[in-house]
Amino acid sequence: MEKFKKIILSENEMPKQWYNIMADMPNKPLPPLHPATKQPVGPEDLAAVFPMELIKQEVSAERYIDIPDEVLDLYMKFRPSPLFRATSLEKALGTKSKIYYKYEGGNYSGSHKANTAIAQAYYNKQEGVRRITTETGAGQWGSAMSFACNHFGLELLVFMVKVSYNQKPGRKLLMNTYNAKVVPSPSTLTSAGRKILEMDPDSPGSLGIAISEAMEIAAQDPYTKYSLGSVLNHVILHQTIVGQEAMIQIEKAGDYPDVVIGCFGGGSNFSGIGFPFLREKLQHGKNVRLVAVEPSSCPKLTKGKFTYDFGDTAGMTPLLPMYTLGHNFMPDKIHAGGLRYHGAGVLVSQLLKDGFIEAKAKMQRECFEGAVLFARTEGILPAPESSYAIAGALDEARKADLEGVSKTILFNLSGHGHFDISAYEKYFENNLPDHELTAAEVENAISKIEVPV
Amino acid sequence: MEKFKKIILSENEMPKQWYNIMADMPNKPLPPLHPATKQPVGPEDLAAVFPMELIKQEVSAERYIDIPDEVLDLYMKFRPSPLFRATSLEKALGTKSKIYYKYEGGNYSGSHKANTAIAQAYYNKQEGVRRITTETGAGQWGSAMSFACNHFGLELLVFMVKVSYNQKPGRKLLMNTYNAKVVPSPSTLTSAGRKILEMDPDSPGSLGIAISEAMEIAAQDPYTKYSLGSVLNHVILHQTIVGQEAMIQIEKAGDYPDVVIGCFGGGSNFSGIGFPFLREKLQHGKNVRLVAVEPSSCPKLTKGKFTYDFGDTAGMTPLLPMYTLGHNFMPDKIHAGGLRYHGAGVLVSQLLKDGFIEAKAKMQRECFEGAVLFARTEGILPAPESSYAIAGALDEARKADLEGVSKTILFNLSGHGHFDISAYEKYFENNLPDHELTAAEVENAISKIEVPV
Repeated sequence: MEKFKKIILSENEMPKQWYNIMADMPNKPLPPLHPATKQPVGPEDLAAVFPMELIKQEVSAERYIDIPDEVLDLYMKFRPSPLFRATSLEKALGTKSKIYYKYEGGNYSGSHKANTAIAQAYYNKQEGVRRITTETGAGQWGSAMSFACNHFGLELLVFMVKVSYNQKPGRKLLMNTYNAKVVPSPSTLTSAGRKILEMDPDSPGSLGIAISEAMEIAAQDPYTKYSLGSVLNHVILHQTIVGQEAMIQIEKAGDYPDVVIGCFGGGSNFSGIGFPFLREKLQHGKNVRLVAVEPSSCPKLTKGKFTYDFGDTAGMTPLLPMYTLGHNFMPDKIHAGGLRYHGAGVLVSQLLKDGFIEAKAKMQRECFEGAVLFARTEGILPAPESSYAIAGALDEARKADLEGVSKTILFNLSGHGHFDISAYEKYFENNLPDHELTAAEVENAISKIEVPV
Repeated sequence: MEKFKKIILSENEMPKQWYNIMADMPNKPLPPLHPATKQPVGPEDLAAVFPMELIKQEVSAERYIDIPDEVLDLYMKFRPSPLFRATSLEKALGTKSKIYYKYEGGNYSGSHKANTAIAQAYYNKQEGVRRITTETGAGQWGSAMSFACNHFGLELLVFMVKVSYNQKPGRKLLMNTYNAKVVPSPSTLTSAGRKILEMDPDSPGSLGIAISEAMEIAAQDPYTKYSLGSVLNHVILHQTIVGQEAMIQIEKAGDYPDVVIGCFGGGSNFSGIGFPFLREKLQHGKNVRLVAVEPSSCPKLTKGKFTYDFGDTAGMTPLLPMYTLGHNFMPDKIHAGGLRYHGAGVLVSQLLKDGFIEAKAKMQRECFEGAVLFARTEGILPAPESSYAIAGALDEARKADLEGVSKTILFNLSGHGHFDISAYEKYFENNLPDHELTAAEVENAISKIEVPV
């Protein structure tokens, strides 16, 4: 085992269930509330936009949920994904620590998003849905959903955040290749989009706005449903395949992580790799830290407020109890489009509040610096989002070296950056602005959160 | 085994030697000739541009050559590569045949080129070389070499064929990220480039021209060597890791191919997957067909002449006995930049002449049609080059179905198309010209070959 670079699992070794952390949380999250009645939403309130099986998963307290055969079948086109030991990166750092990364960029979509896209498309198809609407930031989620919908014979309409639509034209073309229709958001197709454009015709868009647009279209037609790429419990559930595999792999390597790191947008890739390890901590007291890394310009975990807020800008979603910068918060145009989201998923928010996970914020230039070091040592060009996880891992290794100890560090390399190469160009041109949200900016953002309960 | 999607090998199962088909060829190829003396070139003639170990491999008759530990070590970042069963594609075709593909796009460079890049960079480093020059078409080879050179501490200067430089800006940026310098070819840096630009300031460039430029620079400095991404025997040798793995994998699946297919530029990806199977045919009479698929607009295998010709446009290489359209042939600006080469490697040429392999030519629109079908079914977006192998595989499946038989088809999906997405845009816009070289065009091209021996 001395010289191994990666741990590969066979298809037989792939976990056949998703893990639901709800079952093991000491404090269950507060319920989502109906914006009008302020009462907990029931399944029927969500049925207009989601298929019933996903609604059941959203509220389930079952510890394990079987992955359907059709989903397993499609997973096996790219799963289990490899776990790498970052030996070249370790050498470049001169660290005493061991750095592992789970690589989720090796599939058709180039990111972990395929794990939930396939599941969501499958359940929708099962329930007779004909068309799906969704949002996408950098386009990883939209790409993942495009192939999945096409596979199951569903139409897909993607609202792509305008700044990313312009930054990453290749992602739109990839979605088109998989038969999806893509429009830049805010758009004139919806009243939510038109309203934003009236206020700011040059709005760069945000995930919050794109969600509003996609939900608005879905609510108009019984055969159209809406699909979300992160934040929600069922999305996080589907991503736990990542951490379950990683645990088998790192144990095969004769190791166990001291710290597990993910970048943080809505929470699904962080939770996907982290929650199975947190399970071991909650159930058996096994020692492990979970660290979420978010952009300094969109710091909901580190500077946001824990309160009920909408998941989208127009206020169409239920009210969710979460760390948020306010559903009207407009994030900077950073290249990590998938991290430009105002709130954190409910499960992560509760766990952060209860001290079971940690969060930190990083500037984009430092993250790209880490991404370039990673590319030059490990080879793979990281997605801008994943660069935040890399920066988090480098922090941990350096800290351990300063303390004279050796740690075992695991992070999720959630995607590759082949469609984000213009961001690297900007980095090399020294043309990536850094912005840490000031106390006044945070105060201002939070003051605008209407807390309707 | 019923439902498997792919066969994965562990690092322990990775072959530790390359296979040299020279040992098993009934008719050995004619020797390369010195252009001035018309005598067979000796190692000393090549020493100005290649390190001695690669020259030895170029002329070796040993059946197996050990892969150095340092090369194995880097291979293990991405090898063994997966072998997939294309179940979704088979279903879409309704074929009775089984289609397998070896996927070489899962590594940092996005193609099979990493297999030889790492080896070449290693041997150069061992012999004290400080800088490498090379050509690249679509940029797969340049990307592969950039990381490999950076890893071993070598500088790299890449001459990128101008049409591809403009079509695929992301590839240049990727090479820059790996610390390489990239210039569009023809350039004003070399007399070869300047000569072409004098004749045609708008020359789109070609691999032949870019090779001349890279060799010219290398010949000027004892610490600078030249590196080639295909054509030569040692390059093909390094690629045989692909076919050796594929054989283990397909046998694990309880199968064996009736036909092995690769796209064809200079021959390295085709030979890489095919030669280990051809070994079984040559040594043990095991029945297998090898089919090389080239562009109809650059048909050296199907319409070229078998003769001595230069490997580059300026006539700096030794004279090689090969199928060629003439070293001055200017291929169409097809998006499969890696296939825009006037000649075929010596080993492949001899084997084609002797009837051990087959060749066919395809139009680019039909290849993109196959690539889109492949993307929508199997998920992975193919490189334009690889689309020719897909088209070849689809031909074989359809032919077998017409004949009412079931065949086992294996092809090399040599790379992904993430940096080639603009080519797909052109395809969807119905803006991809098709051109089959006419008899008169072939006649004209071949008439210009000076046969100096």
